Amino acid sequence: HRGGMQSSNSALASTIEKADTDVDLESFLNEGDLEGNFPMRAKFEKTLREAQISITKAIEEIDGEATFQEDSWQRPTGGGGKSRVLSEGKVFEKAGVNLSVVYGTMSREALRAATEKGDEIVKDMAPDEKVPFFACGLSSVMHPRNPFCPTMHFNYRYFETDGGAWWFGGGTDITPSYVNEDDMKHFHGTYKEICDKHDPNYYKEFKAWADRYFVIQHRNETRGFGGIFFDDQNEKDPEDIFAFSEECLNSVVKAYGPIIEKHKDDEFTQKQKEWQLMRRGRYVEFNLVYDRGTIFGLKTGGRIESILMSLPETARWEYDHVPEPGSPEAEFIDVCKNPRDWV
Amino acid sequence: HRGGMQSSNSALASTIEKADTDVDLESFLNEGDLEGNFPMRAKFEKTLREAQISITKAIEEIDGEATFQEDSWQRPTGGGGKSRVLSEGKVFEKAGVNLSVVYGTMSREALRAATEKGDEIVKDMAPDEKVPFFACGLSSVMHPRNPFCPTMHFNYRYFETDGGAWWFGGGTDITPSYVNEDDMKHFHGTYKEICDKHDPNYYKEFKAWADRYFVIQHRNETRGFGGIFFDDQNEKDPEDIFAFSEECLNSVVKAYGPIIEKHKDDEFTQKQKEWQLMRRGRYVEFNLVYDRGTIFGLKTGGRIESILMSLPETARWEYDHVPEPGSPEAEFIDVCKNPRDWV
Repeated sequence: HRGGMQSSNSALASTIEKADTDVDLESFLNEGDLEGNFPMRAKFEKTLREAQISITKAIEEIDGEATFQEDSWQRPTGGGGKSRVLSEGKVFEKAGVNLSVVYGTMSREALRAATEKGDEIVKDMAPDEKVPFFACGLSSVMHPRNPFCPTMHFNYRYFETDGGAWWFGGGTDITPSYVNEDDMKHFHGTYKEICDKHDPNYYKEFKAWADRYFVIQHRNETRGFGGIFFDDQNEKDPEDIFAFSEECLNSVVKAYGPIIEKHKDDEFTQKQKEWQLMRRGRYVEFNLVYDRGTIFGLKTGGRIESILMSLPETARWEYDHVPEPGSPEAEFIDVCKNPRDWV
Repeated sequence: HRGGMQSSNSALASTIEKADTDVDLESFLNEGDLEGNFPMRAKFEKTLREAQISITKAIEEIDGEATFQEDSWQRPTGGGGKSRVLSEGKVFEKAGVNLSVVYGTMSREALRAATEKGDEIVKDMAPDEKVPFFACGLSSVMHPRNPFCPTMHFNYRYFETDGGAWWFGGGTDITPSYVNEDDMKHFHGTYKEICDKHDPNYYKEFKAWADRYFVIQHRNETRGFGGIFFDDQNEKDPEDIFAFSEECLNSVVKAYGPIIEKHKDDEFTQKQKEWQLMRRGRYVEFNLVYDRGTIFGLKTGGRIESILMSLPETARWEYDHVPEPGSPEAEFIDVCKNPRDWV
């Protein structure tokens, strides 16, 4: 039941190294590390890798100049991944899409960071106890140059741990620097349509979850204008949650691409660019202080450059910057403090 | 025994607000919140405030153009502070010196972050237990423009908690972007001389402590080239530790100023500027992920802008940037991986 995948034995032989950029669907899976749902792991990995290839191709077309460079990496204690990064593009300042397929044993602290239910899951574990795990995900951040082009992030992942526990998590969310209602209607509308096909409660629930999760707590502001976010999903047939995750993932370009095409050549001032760079600074604050994926990656000995490729090329911090009342920047902050319903 | 300080009652009346920039020595102290060493609190606060005034004056003279702006802020649950920030200077991109005098009750989590012995101190506390505390400190980061001018940080603080516990902590450390042995000999030599006057073991111990503390653990690199760092100092007469802290604080300009004067007009290339901005990115990683002062500030409801004024005006992240072997940038990384003895 390994489908069309090649054996991973050769891939596991060495530590982190660069690979050439030929497209391949080589699997990082290794059967038998954990009693679990191997067919789902294989199917999810293949879906993620194919999405990584198609999404990066679409983004290259939008950019028109730069291309993604691929690095393949191995995790010495189990698994590996492929990172695709585009730098210094015409439209994109920096864009990264990272596939990671990792397994082995995980510390209490890493497990706590892995899921929203972490505190509950680890409460009966000894401080130095380790649990077998499998985790497979595709995560991405795209930072365009134009201040009217929003940053976009997505992450879709499948987890298994000891004793047959499994869950899906994921989401796609958007971080503009200015309020544009039409753009948000398109982005949120695309995901609402997908959600509604799978479960009438999904959009409401997962939109609220994104608004709750992407919060820079020390500033009492959201990072951006949300989208959908879900975690710990295991109360339906895994095939149903898989189908939902797959459709969300394969709709990233449809939800995001038209917004970039529309604004990539918008005129802007130096002040608007600086405002965007300050929003990038907030993005850095969220990712380094609160983001579960980042903290999980750092704690499981993930590949640092692949984890931190989510950070923008440039970010800015001005002391005590407060937008003028009534300005577009003040309107933006108001939405960060009072998340809106867009559809 | 309140010395020459004014009553703090009026200062405590309002929440965070801007003050005019008249130099004043108004105290944030409030007697009787905690059984403790009130005269030491008052003396330390006065020393910090006077140092804040003299250091910012010296930095303004070096800059030659920009001046520090002062904000006075109140902490609704007890105490307050004064932040002095210089922005967009000729020599300095951003420089901040923050006085904070805070007290009240502190959560278990905040106390854990407050000291290196935090884990030990909190181990018998209930999860929701709170302890009375007093903390008074002056902290500063200076980010110059020229890539051959190092960033400098210092922090000197005095803590009291319940049951008569007290300790001093502090240090001054330097973060260049390039290796310059003469500069490091001057900086470390200045602090070695002060240390040696107070205790023959101080420099060796506190230099090693800085090398251990200022580590970006996920990269296995130091943030910069160290200096001195100490925490939990309470095994001598408080007057002796006070005298040592005071001399360290009052030697910041002597240790740092000449290095800036020497390099502020050095020629540099765009590539060297970008390298400096990538080092600033590392500075952000350390401060947001590991720095005890930052985490303590965020957890005790500190004033966000005063805590995060340590962040540079601009920072840069390039994916998987590796300096050319044999280059000055590679030499720099080598020192971050293998801290050197400079004196």
